[in-house]
Amino acid sequence: MSKDDQDVLATFGAADSRIDIDLGAIAHNWIYLDSKSSKNTRTAAMVKANGYGLGANDVGGALYKTGCRQFFVANLGEAISFRSHMDTINATDSQIMVLHGCQRGQEHDMRVYRLTPVLNDLEQLSRWRLFAQNANETMPALLHLDTGMTRLGFDPDQTDWLIENKQALNNLDITYVMSHLISGEITNGSANNVQKARFDEYHSFFAGMKASLANSGGIFLDTDFHYQMTRPGIAIYGVHPCGKDYALQQTDGLKPTVAWHARIIQVQNAPAGAMVGYGGTHKLTRPSRIATVGIGYADGYHRSLGSKAYVNILGHRAPVIGRVSMDSITVDVTDMPRNIMQKAETVALLSDLYSIEDMADDASTIPYEILTGLSQRANRRYADYL
Amino acid sequence: MSKDDQDVLATFGAADSRIDIDLGAIAHNWIYLDSKSSKNTRTAAMVKANGYGLGANDVGGALYKTGCRQFFVANLGEAISFRSHMDTINATDSQIMVLHGCQRGQEHDMRVYRLTPVLNDLEQLSRWRLFAQNANETMPALLHLDTGMTRLGFDPDQTDWLIENKQALNNLDITYVMSHLISGEITNGSANNVQKARFDEYHSFFAGMKASLANSGGIFLDTDFHYQMTRPGIAIYGVHPCGKDYALQQTDGLKPTVAWHARIIQVQNAPAGAMVGYGGTHKLTRPSRIATVGIGYADGYHRSLGSKAYVNILGHRAPVIGRVSMDSITVDVTDMPRNIMQKAETVALLSDLYSIEDMADDASTIPYEILTGLSQRANRRYADYL
Repeated sequence: MSKDDQDVLATFGAADSRIDIDLGAIAHNWIYLDSKSSKNTRTAAMVKANGYGLGANDVGGALYKTGCRQFFVANLGEAISFRSHMDTINATDSQIMVLHGCQRGQEHDMRVYRLTPVLNDLEQLSRWRLFAQNANETMPALLHLDTGMTRLGFDPDQTDWLIENKQALNNLDITYVMSHLISGEITNGSANNVQKARFDEYHSFFAGMKASLANSGGIFLDTDFHYQMTRPGIAIYGVHPCGKDYALQQTDGLKPTVAWHARIIQVQNAPAGAMVGYGGTHKLTRPSRIATVGIGYADGYHRSLGSKAYVNILGHRAPVIGRVSMDSITVDVTDMPRNIMQKAETVALLSDLYSIEDMADDASTIPYEILTGLSQRANRRYADYL
Repeated sequence: MSKDDQDVLATFGAADSRIDIDLGAIAHNWIYLDSKSSKNTRTAAMVKANGYGLGANDVGGALYKTGCRQFFVANLGEAISFRSHMDTINATDSQIMVLHGCQRGQEHDMRVYRLTPVLNDLEQLSRWRLFAQNANETMPALLHLDTGMTRLGFDPDQTDWLIENKQALNNLDITYVMSHLISGEITNGSANNVQKARFDEYHSFFAGMKASLANSGGIFLDTDFHYQMTRPGIAIYGVHPCGKDYALQQTDGLKPTVAWHARIIQVQNAPAGAMVGYGGTHKLTRPSRIATVGIGYADGYHRSLGSKAYVNILGHRAPVIGRVSMDSITVDVTDMPRNIMQKAETVALLSDLYSIEDMADDASTIPYEILTGLSQRANRRYADYL
């Protein structure tokens, strides 16, 4: 066994898998995205869903050092946790925006933790404004107008009402009017232009307010989608919203931010005709060598990857055969060079031979769900930024 | 709004969702499973993968009070964490067995934390035995013989060798010889009998050693599958291994152990022709009311449930339409009685109207993956046992 491979395994600790998160790459990606728009456009960062599964606090800290001051989370719980961390590292001037708005009973915490709710309807608006009036203060907020997603944001009727009744915004400091693209990643799609036209029309009734429309996909559209703030998410985490092929065409692209390895638990011989895994779904057609690897769907390695995915063993691709178990997978290593298997103690689940885009395709989902599904059972290591 | 509903929402805290875990039901299920086999058969408990996602420490504590003394985890990391907790609650006589065996460099921790590795091949056996010899102690272990799964356990050649060379077991106290069923849940399947016959043949060469073969599925097979220890997992957590239909036929069944609710973030009107969600995959055919609920695939609500699942709003089923987002889903509540929607602030994601089996079917997976995928973003509440 080589010293190198010993070193790899030592980093697993008592776990059977390891997730490496490259904060330097995350910082690089944010700087790259920031460079795509003009100096008058600020670049925020999505750190919701625990920083797309990679750790909101660590990601937030790295991005703050890079210059990012505007962060989005989904709800109050995430916001409180994130604010507490950012205060701890003296990143007190971070603006933290809460996408789900101010829900009933959350007004007090919104103020105490210096949060900016994204107001999605008249109910949320009225609640936050009433609280501001009673406190005799001006409270910050974003105004989210729906332009075609029918998910969050003022619906057309409520938007029309608001345009006619702007005094409903008294006591509020609307820092941005925003909307959200339904398919920003489709660079030649007409849906983006339809949404943009609707957004511009709405925006014209709120003269003087700054605006925000672009998610990661929107950043790669024309610069007139950028307005005064962009809100990248997935691209910060190294996944191009427009897909891997599009990303490969770019000269100065995004860097992958996550590596994922797992321990080989056992290697065994099996005769032709033997069945592998639950349900005996995979029948061996030849005498085989099977490596069992300590990663399963409880780790976020999707069950749908069974008999589809590949792993990387010291530079060689090997297929996952049979079903994914809760804690393990079975890999056909019959064709692996013997000297490779003598050295190998771990496999790479994500690598240059099998990207997160490849994994998402094989799992019939999108890289976002792979990232946010990474479980806490792995030994997580952060490569520090700066 | 009714006082009842106010109380429900208050229990969310700052989160947008809540997971209730009923430790009393978990204890009930274990007692029920224990009653299926004779007094000479001990009933262990699978608490690997953080207790199938529900919290290994809480589950382990409840089961210990119920009388369970034998626990299985997947790997050393889980074992150390679980032993530390069980010692804290004075459950020091718990036997903790590690399914992935003793990996390189783990010998010392195995002994310090009083763990029993499941030895899956000659490499693991030799490592543990050498350590025992050097320590001049007898070390406990289980011997796992593969009988047809080709995943973990001594392969046929190594088993034959071991039968001829039983002195290789010197210095080890083999508490059980075990194997694992590939389809124990198929009660009329011949595969179980084939595995059992092979297991009995192997076992005959290890006279005097206790044996274990049955997972949850095996418990519902003939009692001669039970031997001296059963190892239920999924059934403890309230999911019948043989499926919901089979479970309904049982008079004294398993109880569900988990409830899952999420907050309604916004309710909006949308005209006929409007598109809902990412990609605009769902087109409304009539003027509609859409409720956006604060649960998404980052919470473990599978993305594959988009346009398939149902939620329960105060006793009424409503369909999820469009894609599942990272943090939210969209629900068609057009047909909901107006008085229901005036009261409703939350929805039930799992309920008697939509079980975990229903959800798994709609997500094209199995309940195990739903359970282990439940994320930490929810507010988790435990109903105490005793």
